[in-house]
Parts: sequence; structure tokens; C-alpha cells
Amino acid sequence: MRSKRIVILTEGHTNPITAKTAWAVLRYRGGDVVALFDTTQAGKTAGELMNVGGDIPIIGSLDEVAEPDALLIGIAPMGGKLPTEWKSIIVSAIERGMTIISGLHDFLSNDKDLVAAAEQHGVELVDIRKNNERDVSNRLDLREDCLRIHTVGHDCSIGKMVTSVELTNELKRQGQDAKFVATGQTGIMIEGDGCPVDCVVSDFVNGSIEKQILANQHHDILVIEGQASLAHPRYSAVTAGLLHGCLPHGMILVFEAGRKTVSGMPHIPLTPLPKLIQAYENLAALHMPSKVIGLAMNGRLLTPEQAEDERKRVQDETGLVVCDVFRDGSEPLAAAVMNLRAEIFGTPVAS
Amino acid sequence: MRSKRIVILTEGHTNPITAKTAWAVLRYRGGDVVALFDTTQAGKTAGELMNVGGDIPIIGSLDEVAEPDALLIGIAPMGGKLPTEWKSIIVSAIERGMTIISGLHDFLSNDKDLVAAAEQHGVELVDIRKNNERDVSNRLDLREDCLRIHTVGHDCSIGKMVTSVELTNELKRQGQDAKFVATGQTGIMIEGDGCPVDCVVSDFVNGSIEKQILANQHHDILVIEGQASLAHPRYSAVTAGLLHGCLPHGMILVFEAGRKTVSGMPHIPLTPLPKLIQAYENLAALHMPSKVIGLAMNGRLLTPEQAEDERKRVQDETGLVVCDVFRDGSEPLAAAVMNLRAEIFGTPVAS
Repeated sequence: MRSKRIVILTEGHTNPITAKTAWAVLRYRGGDVVALFDTTQAGKTAGELMNVGGDIPIIGSLDEVAEPDALLIGIAPMGGKLPTEWKSIIVSAIERGMTIISGLHDFLSNDKDLVAAAEQHGVELVDIRKNNERDVSNRLDLREDCLRIHTVGHDCSIGKMVTSVELTNELKRQGQDAKFVATGQTGIMIEGDGCPVDCVVSDFVNGSIEKQILANQHHDILVIEGQASLAHPRYSAVTAGLLHGCLPHGMILVFEAGRKTVSGMPHIPLTPLPKLIQAYENLAALHMPSKVIGLAMNGRLLTPEQAEDERKRVQDETGLVVCDVFRDGSEPLAAAVMNLRAEIFGTPVAS
Repeated sequence: MRSKRIVILTEGHTNPITAKTAWAVLRYRGGDVVALFDTTQAGKTAGELMNVGGDIPIIGSLDEVAEPDALLIGIAPMGGKLPTEWKSIIVSAIERGMTIISGLHDFLSNDKDLVAAAEQHGVELVDIRKNNERDVSNRLDLREDCLRIHTVGHDCSIGKMVTSVELTNELKRQGQDAKFVATGQTGIMIEGDGCPVDCVVSDFVNGSIEKQILANQHHDILVIEGQASLAHPRYSAVTAGLLHGCLPHGMILVFEAGRKTVSGMPHIPLTPLPKLIQAYENLAALHMPSKVIGLAMNGRLLTPEQAEDERKRVQDETGLVVCDVFRDGSEPLAAAVMNLRAEIFGTPVAS
């Protein structure tokens, strides 16, 4: 049963960067959220600290909300570990009969104390990343006239999921039969399905994504969420397998204006965008031609004027459409998708 | 304790292709093997059916050998699943107190019947692929004057492990302090250490290999075993993460003369060698320059004359040294490694 009265746990981390899962659930599934839990910020609102979620309160005790039905872990820390101090909060939610939803690499269902408490109170522990993917790609039965668009990244935590959701919604708004294919824990929490590809055993990464394509290709356009970056020293295995597993017709590269070094690795400079575009296109081309058709810019560090200058600069540098999805919407990217579709499949009949 | 009287289970598959794990253990650790178990071939010898192992007998019952101390699963089937009919053989080995060694994706220690039998008889179930890798790459503390050589592949099951072991042994023979870094189950069985990278959760692939580098870089030359191929539709996630995790100074590309399509996927043609060389070099270059310095040819499908013709043809096509390691040894590749070392670090003082 889909939870409708969710409390998001953001203890000590109620900000849009560290609590990016919380931010995204508030933005795309805010109607199902009744509170954020952070004893250090109790009394404030989500809108004040997260720039999303309006009057949704920040609470310091589960007693402050009526009938909460789920506790959702709202951060995705490096390495995926559950902070020890959160465990007692989770136990108190279990004692109230709340479902616990987690996207961490460390599964709640591997924690003996939490499992015992959950059994005692008849509560479900939902580990979004838990999977037993064991299928390999076969490259058979792909629907020829389903357009596959893949958002790829300059780095981690940069806006690939937001771009994917916004672009899908814009295509739907224009009457297209588009579907967001979630590949990360937050996307799955929002969309209700998908594959947690960064937690799949490496031999089965490509196959796990092909399975998502086969399951969803009755839609006309798939927007497949990217993960990490092909140039990320830590996570390029995930990115490469995802690229070959989803075989995109076109890619949209997501970057953050002003970011100079790899997330979490200040000693590693980011790859220049034109070089990275070439790398994605080359790797994809081992199987089929695919090109980057536009860039999505995350301009959160810049003023609107600075962002517009940077947008134009990158547009000139790459010769591709660049848009700040969060500030200005994704219409230019949707147009690039429809142009690619016309180029590959011919001009569709107006609906 | 390292097993010294191993029986290798190859039931119904006693040939060098399907039982590639058995073949490699016989070749590189044959002194520890007392028999192969295959009821369909009992009475023959390993030498007859496997082209290696000489007089080591093929048996149809464990009673035929004295004091066997381990049963080693000698195949690596697609997807890693344990054939059901082998289970009773494993149980009978457990009942004799033998250690069970497996490199399959499906862990013996997840099978309740086998676990119960093992507990009853005080026997160890060794799942070579089982791991809980949770470390990410940091790109710190790499020893600058340790040369990293990585064998990369045109396809799966093509000779990357054999090339790595033979090259390491040749370098040692020449007095170099070289170390084989195993990344697959068979290599680990032979070398006694390493990381089963194709069974690591995708987020931690790059980090699991960096850890191997850090643990072994007191040696002067590391030969890091490759997995699959960057152009393999199923397994490129593994290959890409391995490449970025081990940051090679130079690569050796392993191919099989005469192979035209991807292993297990007859509808997918193999990528031409020059294009694949470019792809490996481009992906590596996102972090540091690395070049393919030579090719190892697997000539098992050809006569010696055909093999020599093909060797010369590929040498002309790529402009790189090509050698049939199995037929002719790996001296030309060792020379290419030493040339690269001199090029990067300067000519070493003769030891």
C-alpha cells in the first residue's frame, strides 16, 4: 500500500543538498508528506529550510503529527551507511506501527534489532535498493519505434533525476506518451517503480536496465535516469553499464554551473564538457549511434544573471541547446527530443 | 588451510571450454589436484579430455581417490547457477568432510540444505565470489613508480587470465618483482588472493580494485586481470569500473583469432580491434593517458600456420606487437612492458 502520511527523517541534515532525497520527495510527492523529523530544527517549516514543501512542519517528536504511516530516510550519505544515532528514532517509528522506507546501501533488513522490532510490531521494512537482479542483457525484442532518451551526468548529485522527471512531465504536458524510468532510490520512491542500478551486482547491471526498457517500451518515449558520471573515479562502472543497458537514441548531459571538482573528491578536477560529451558518444557508439542533444544546467550556485551568462557560454562552447531546467523549465530539451524523434522515425502525425 | 588433494567437479562438462575453471586450476595448480569428477567420462584422464593435467584420473565416485580434502566446482556457467544434479555430489563430498570451493554467483552458503550438511559435518563452504565490498576509490596514495599493466578483452572467455598469469611469470623469470592481481574466481583460486569484481555491488567496483592496487603496490609491476570487454553488451559495467579502478599505465588486448560474434550472443558482431583499442584508450584517458602496448592472441581454433598468418595480419593492422601466448610464450609482451616502464620511469638500473 502506498504511504500517504509520510514523515521524512532528516535529523541534523535538513538542507536541500545533504537531504537531496527529502528535497525530491517533497517536490514530486509532497502531498504524501506530513512532516520532516529533525530535533535540531523543530518548529521551523520545510519551506524555510528546503526551499520546497511550504508549511510542512519540522518536528522533534513523532507525537507531533496525527497518524503518520511511514518514516522515510531522507538522506543518501556517501557509502550509504545509516548514522547510528538515527536507529533509536527508527525504532520509535516501528513501535508506532509505521512502515520504514530506506534507500541506503546498508539494508534495514540486515539489522537484527530493527528486524526484531519490525516483526514484533508487524511493520514492513522497505529497502528500496535491495534487489536480486540476475538477468543479463539479450539485445532482443527492443521495440523499434520507442525513443530512448538518457540523462547522463558531469558528476554525482547534480540534477539528473530532476531533469528526467521535469522533461518527462513536459513531454506529457505536450500530449506525448512519455515515461520516467527511475534508476536510483529517490526516483523509485517518486515513481513507484524502477531499478536501483547502483546496488545491482556488477555482472547484471546492463541486464537490469534492459529489463526496465522491455517492461516500459509500450510507451512512446522513455526518459531513463542516469547515474553518476562516466568520468567519476568512483562510480563509472554504474554509468557505463547503464549506458549500454539502455541503448539511448539520444542523451542529455546534466552539469552544475560553477562546479570545478568531482563531488567528494576535491583533488580531482571535473572533465571539460566537450571532452565528456565525446566520451559518452564514443562509448555508446560501440553498439549504436547516439548523440548528446542538449544540456541541462543546474544553476543553483549562481544569480539569475550569472546563470544566463553561463548558459549562453556553454551553448556557444558545445553548439547544443542548454537550459536551466529548474529556473526556466525543460521546453527547449523537450523540443530537442521531438526533433530527434522526427529525425529518426520521421515526422509524427500531429495528435 | 590451502587444500592439497582437490577433486574438481566437471560432471558432464569435461572439456577445456565449458570447464575453463577446471582447465586453469589444472594448468596452474595441478600439483594440488588428485582427480576430476565426471561420471560420464570415468576411467579417462585429464590429459585426454582437457589437454592438461596428464595422468590425473577422471572418477565417477569419490571412493576412487584416497583422502580427498576439497571439491572444487570446475565450471563457470552463464549466469553462475549451480546445476541441480550436482547438488547430491556436493552433499556426498560434505559427508566425507571435504571443503567445498565454488566460484558461482549463486552462493553455496545461501543453500539451506548445503549449509545444514556442512554444519553437521564441520565442513567449510568457500564461496570465492562472496564479498561485502563497501569502499569507494579515493585516488590517493598510489605509488608513483609501480607500473600497472591491465589485460583487457575483445570478449569474455578469451584468455585474459591466462595472459595475465603467463606474463607475470615471464616477468618474474626475467628477475622482475611482478604480481598477478586476480579479479575473477578462477584467478583467485590460482593466486590465493584478489577480488571477484564481477560480483561486487556496482557502486563499489572501482573502489574494490583500487583496494587491490593499494594492497599490492609494494611490487614493482602489477598485472591486473581484465574482465569481459568494454564492448560486451552484458558486462561492460564490470570492464569500465575495473579500468578506472586500476588506472593502468599500459594495456594488453586479448583476442581470439577467428571469433566473429560476442560470446553467448551470436546476433551481436564483435567490435573491430582498432576501434576497441581506441575505446579503451579514450575511456582510460578521462583520468590518465594509457595505451594498448600489445595484443595477446588466442589461436586455439587455428592450425599453427593459420595462427602465424593471423598474428602477422593483426600486427600489421594495429601496428602493435601481437603474440600467441599459449603457443609461443609471452616474451614479446614482457618486452613491451619493460619498454613502457623505461619510457615512463626512465631506464631502470640493471639488477
